[in-house]
Amino acid sequence: MQIIRFRTADNQMCLGTGYDGTTASVLEGDIFSGVKDTGRRVDVAKTEVPVTPAAIFCIGLNYRGHAEETGMDLPRYPVVFMKNPGAVIPHNSDIVIPVSCLEKPEVDYEAELGVVIGRPAKHVSEAEALDYVLGYTCANDVSARRWQKHAGGGQWVRGKSFDTFCPLGPVLVTPDEIPDPQNLAIESVLNGQTMQTSNTRDMIFSVAALIAFLSQSTTLAPGTLILTGTPEGVGFARKPPVYLMPGDQLQTRIQGIGTLANPVAAEAAVSRK
Amino acid sequence: MQIIRFRTADNQMCLGTGYDGTTASVLEGDIFSGVKDTGRRVDVAKTEVPVTPAAIFCIGLNYRGHAEETGMDLPRYPVVFMKNPGAVIPHNSDIVIPVSCLEKPEVDYEAELGVVIGRPAKHVSEAEALDYVLGYTCANDVSARRWQKHAGGGQWVRGKSFDTFCPLGPVLVTPDEIPDPQNLAIESVLNGQTMQTSNTRDMIFSVAALIAFLSQSTTLAPGTLILTGTPEGVGFARKPPVYLMPGDQLQTRIQGIGTLANPVAAEAAVSRK
Repeated sequence: MQIIRFRTADNQMCLGTGYDGTTASVLEGDIFSGVKDTGRRVDVAKTEVPVTPAAIFCIGLNYRGHAEETGMDLPRYPVVFMKNPGAVIPHNSDIVIPVSCLEKPEVDYEAELGVVIGRPAKHVSEAEALDYVLGYTCANDVSARRWQKHAGGGQWVRGKSFDTFCPLGPVLVTPDEIPDPQNLAIESVLNGQTMQTSNTRDMIFSVAALIAFLSQSTTLAPGTLILTGTPEGVGFARKPPVYLMPGDQLQTRIQGIGTLANPVAAEAAVSRK
Repeated sequence: MQIIRFRTADNQMCLGTGYDGTTASVLEGDIFSGVKDTGRRVDVAKTEVPVTPAAIFCIGLNYRGHAEETGMDLPRYPVVFMKNPGAVIPHNSDIVIPVSCLEKPEVDYEAELGVVIGRPAKHVSEAEALDYVLGYTCANDVSARRWQKHAGGGQWVRGKSFDTFCPLGPVLVTPDEIPDPQNLAIESVLNGQTMQTSNTRDMIFSVAALIAFLSQSTTLAPGTLILTGTPEGVGFARKPPVYLMPGDQLQTRIQGIGTLANPVAAEAAVSRK
């Protein structure tokens, strides 16, 4: 099932399925305990993120092609960092370039397969890991490269956690529709031009391996979001580099899931209160 | 005011003040919007963490003495990483050594001043930053050193995010009782022996500076927890190294706040489901 979360014209939050860009069929129930299609179609006034993440674990350098373009060694273990859960924005919402990144561009895109955990996962084996997946979605690990590399003492969290730096959605696709998460075409498209194009089979650590790794002695709560890494073609590794600029249109596309579209805007000048 | 969150004998969750180790006076209201002391004392069956964190930002190498003992350069900017919010445990709950860390000890303590944000903070200046603080608490940034250094590709999140790796509490002390967060004695005591003893005045980046830094173009939601770094005396930098072992008793003490006590236990052997 393809599930969206959305607001109606009278600002009610709903779950829906069969989203056609304008309307959706209302789902009854809760996304974690189970939903039922009412068949009643309503107008979708605004899409919201399909899940408000309990936490966001991110994996760095998880596609062979991307590890190569950065000039870094292939990782022996998953490279794990986090993003502030408050950074999520839905489909069609603006990625906002922070004031500190406007003069000298540095904000980059990273198309990623997002995996949402559906029930508490701890010490899960790779063989059973996918049974804990609530669904898959499109995500973008937007990154301010100078902040990431220089302003966090080598830790990436600060440069990855600005407001709006985690576009997510619009749909969450349940695992019955994604029998093999390691065979999905994934791309990012900037202003109509394909910037990243790869397949999740290029991942160094599979979705199942990542869940097993992260759940060692650690409970992944329902609603935990795992961003599974990005393929080659990111902006900073291009010659010349390409960074997100106000007015850009970014799309994150994954086969069998759909397209997450986000315009890019500039943060207004800061007036200290 | 000194606020605890606790369960009564009949498992009701309450806020309280004037905790004497056995009873507390019940508070009415919500910790973010305001509380009122009812004067009605009840038995405290179990202390809980004072706040369930929305997110946990952590600062590395933020005490001069600790930066020196690690042999690393003093940071030019705050070193920012995160912990999984699911890692929090309350006063008197066990720090559980993961099975993977039992054979060769590596789990270390880091006494830290915890700062809880009370209202949305974005682009907050250093001068006004402390106005956004809901309260201060004792915290420990428990860390598996091999996981931290080797198993996360240089990123620290994985080794810092095991279940139980964030003891927190027992009390949240409101800012009126902590006029200067940069003049608090802080220590960790392991099995009665003082291992870390310093003062928050040794911080490289003050609490106010950290809030200003983290809130640049980033909304710190109410309930965001900031762990402000640890002073010198951590286990891995000692000669010989000292790591947490099952049966240990760890205390995290901060002047004007109190003592957070946590026994140390071993995780049971894992039986794959």
